[in-house]
Amino acid sequence: RCHHRSPAMLDVPFLPFCAFLGALGLLCVAMVGTWCQHWRGGFSLDGSSRTFNWHPVLMVTGLVVLYGAAALVYRIPNTWSGPKLPWKVLHGSLALGAFVLTVLGLAAVFCFHNSQGTPNMYSLHSWMGLGTVLLFSCQWVAGFGAFLLPWAPTWLRALYKPIHVFFGSTILMLSVASCVSGINEKLFFSLKNGTMAYKLLPAEAVFANTLGLLILIFGVLVVAALARPSWKRPDSDSLDSRQVQDVLGG
Amino acid sequence: RCHHRSPAMLDVPFLPFCAFLGALGLLCVAMVGTWCQHWRGGFSLDGSSRTFNWHPVLMVTGLVVLYGAAALVYRIPNTWSGPKLPWKVLHGSLALGAFVLTVLGLAAVFCFHNSQGTPNMYSLHSWMGLGTVLLFSCQWVAGFGAFLLPWAPTWLRALYKPIHVFFGSTILMLSVASCVSGINEKLFFSLKNGTMAYKLLPAEAVFANTLGLLILIFGVLVVAALARPSWKRPDSDSLDSRQVQDVLGG
Repeated sequence: RCHHRSPAMLDVPFLPFCAFLGALGLLCVAMVGTWCQHWRGGFSLDGSSRTFNWHPVLMVTGLVVLYGAAALVYRIPNTWSGPKLPWKVLHGSLALGAFVLTVLGLAAVFCFHNSQGTPNMYSLHSWMGLGTVLLFSCQWVAGFGAFLLPWAPTWLRALYKPIHVFFGSTILMLSVASCVSGINEKLFFSLKNGTMAYKLLPAEAVFANTLGLLILIFGVLVVAALARPSWKRPDSDSLDSRQVQDVLGG
Repeated sequence: RCHHRSPAMLDVPFLPFCAFLGALGLLCVAMVGTWCQHWRGGFSLDGSSRTFNWHPVLMVTGLVVLYGAAALVYRIPNTWSGPKLPWKVLHGSLALGAFVLTVLGLAAVFCFHNSQGTPNMYSLHSWMGLGTVLLFSCQWVAGFGAFLLPWAPTWLRALYKPIHVFFGSTILMLSVASCVSGINEKLFFSLKNGTMAYKLLPAEAVFANTLGLLILIFGVLVVAALARPSWKRPDSDSLDSRQVQDVLGG
């Protein structure tokens, strides 16, 4: 017995759990789009607050939902046998897609600030968010260099893999914390006057607060799924890992 | 070989890591106290913003730092042999201390809102924060009932233990996300006028943003330490666990 097994009641099968996560992620994307479309004036590229609206939509879609999908690829049992390369390409491509949406999401908020004469990068939300994106870019480049390009020696892959796995979950936690602080901040900015003040909890506030909680739940469940021992790819199945074990004297 | 071993470079010993975490936690407590004392007018019990100032100090001290200390008790190698009860009592007491500070921290913000006529519980920060505290109270009561009172049968302890462990890390992530959104929100509230606007990044904003990042790093490192397989208490060392394995047919 190699893993700490959980008692039987907790042995949820991965694929139904994953389908639930997918539905929850889609709900988050739909809700952030609805919030911006219905209450915040919709979308445009004119540098107004309608340009800003791309920011939450692209961040939730890229840095939370698509990122979460990329992170979970190796937990799909079908990936555990046969050649690993196609799954590596899928993992890297989903992460690249998430990264492109994230950069577009950053461009939206910088464009909005610049056209309004607002300084960039002053709030804790922006520091944490940009830090998360910078970590994500390092993670993608290092993962591509170590695991997809052919030059990396086996010992280097073995050394870097637990670091990559650790930062995979960490970046998701940070991006969820960034989303939540951003939604909170945006509601304080937007809901100021009279009957629509945030503190009177108009429908928009209830809707966006609920969105924030759902994003939190999505992030926690993805991190939990990643950490679950019985859902991890068994090391011994892949040639890669066997080589790694030889090198490490396992 | 029972655990997924990390390569040697990553085999940090637990106790020095723990000392570093302790220093980082104390730094967070010192910084949140300094922020409130030096820039926000200090502390009092008169229902003014000086009463509010207890809120961030008590939350960071209780729900992040002391909570983190409680969570890490079973990772201390000294706890792995000998009777488990004293360590259970220590774990439960530290968590109870964290809970008491947390409740006092909630009392501070409710008292401030009520004396100012501000509604309670409207922001996403407050929803997330109160949800975190409610989860924490369930976690403490269920942990006390299942692991410290003598009535719980072994199969129930075995069933509940992974749930308790999962929510242990989850509650810490949620409390860190709550702290960060709260600091962000407080800075937008407080830094409004002229030369002291948040967007001009006065010294207070740099200081409190840095505090937010340090709290994030503390939370990520504690969750990482909890998740690290080689730092977990080996199941086979304790009579409890052996009984559990018998029951589960392990």
